[in-house]
Amino acid sequence: MSKLRFSVTMSLDGYVAGPNQSLKDPLGVGGEALHGWAVELAAFQEVHGKKGGVVNASSAIMQEMFENVGAVIMGRGMFGGGPGPWPPDWKGWWGKNPPFHMPVFVLTHHPREALPMGGGTTFHFVTDGIESALSKAREAAAGKDVLIGGGASAIQQFLAAGLVDEVNLSVVPLLLGGGERLLDNLGDSAPHFEQMRVVEGPGVVHLRYRVAR
Amino acid sequence: MSKLRFSVTMSLDGYVAGPNQSLKDPLGVGGEALHGWAVELAAFQEVHGKKGGVVNASSAIMQEMFENVGAVIMGRGMFGGGPGPWPPDWKGWWGKNPPFHMPVFVLTHHPREALPMGGGTTFHFVTDGIESALSKAREAAAGKDVLIGGGASAIQQFLAAGLVDEVNLSVVPLLLGGGERLLDNLGDSAPHFEQMRVVEGPGVVHLRYRVAR
Repeated sequence: MSKLRFSVTMSLDGYVAGPNQSLKDPLGVGGEALHGWAVELAAFQEVHGKKGGVVNASSAIMQEMFENVGAVIMGRGMFGGGPGPWPPDWKGWWGKNPPFHMPVFVLTHHPREALPMGGGTTFHFVTDGIESALSKAREAAAGKDVLIGGGASAIQQFLAAGLVDEVNLSVVPLLLGGGERLLDNLGDSAPHFEQMRVVEGPGVVHLRYRVAR
Repeated sequence: MSKLRFSVTMSLDGYVAGPNQSLKDPLGVGGEALHGWAVELAAFQEVHGKKGGVVNASSAIMQEMFENVGAVIMGRGMFGGGPGPWPPDWKGWWGKNPPFHMPVFVLTHHPREALPMGGGTTFHFVTDGIESALSKAREAAAGKDVLIGGGASAIQQFLAAGLVDEVNLSVVPLLLGGGERLLDNLGDSAPHFEQMRVVEGPGVVHLRYRVAR
């Protein structure tokens, strides 16, 4: 069955981005370091069209992230371009050949034509809420899973609505002290997490949970 | 060498106690559930003078907690009795035979005579700050480790001062949504954590870190 899931890296104090996010620091001050465990992997380098990198216990986690995924949903902040109406030239952070290679649905308040990129990625802009985005993404995924790419706010909305089936949290021993905290703002509708699997990688631990509505 | 360390259970959203702590809910609403993994263990039942309980991958973590520990430090909130001057009859949460069996140093602003209890536990009340408490605890521990029992505020003070050597975080898949967050308020002096070991238990993952100053 098609699952809605996400797989993100979180600091030990719960942040998925550091404080003071900007064009220069899209992941906030210190946030880049969250992804050190991933960037050093051969699987990551390959996805980004490069060679080299290492293979270790984290490699399987990186590979599973996009395994059987047919569509991606992300928040406006993750797509970038600042808040408010779209800057005409903004096409996301990922260049001409984004690493998704599938339809990506961007949550936004500002309508925009679909944006086809190289390598099979097309960005679609959804202005009528998370349930609409999920419905469109599920249709595009044609039975495969839908991955919420991020950021924290998008993930929180899907969690609070009880729509998420499975979660991977890659926890790194960083203390960012501020920024975007992943598991906040769930109100009284926090879903129930059930621990499925733990994988220890170098400098990171990967925690997989099933989410019950 | 004598280490300063702590071993606490944290919800996935970072809390070591839930919201609205009270005499009825000393760990806050929902906070009791943090320790389900521990309470079911034979090692826990034995420490509290009872029989029964299970043995699993978490048992070693529970045993390590007090292994080679010669003294405990805890905050006023963990000892209890409410804020302000001491209620004359308050002797802590643990009854006549507390499960420590060693000197315990309680951080407080309110002086009080040392309080000897059954089974080798004596509570000492320290009013001149964390470094003084650590110095007294180290002397009492006579070369063994010193354990910070909690709560969050006491742990944060020792972390921010760069005095902690080793940490065990037992992370359970609860979302408490409020309460006492462990890794907050470290300011710009957040220490560097290095992942040492990961142990998967049923419904809990035990993360051990070395802390660098």
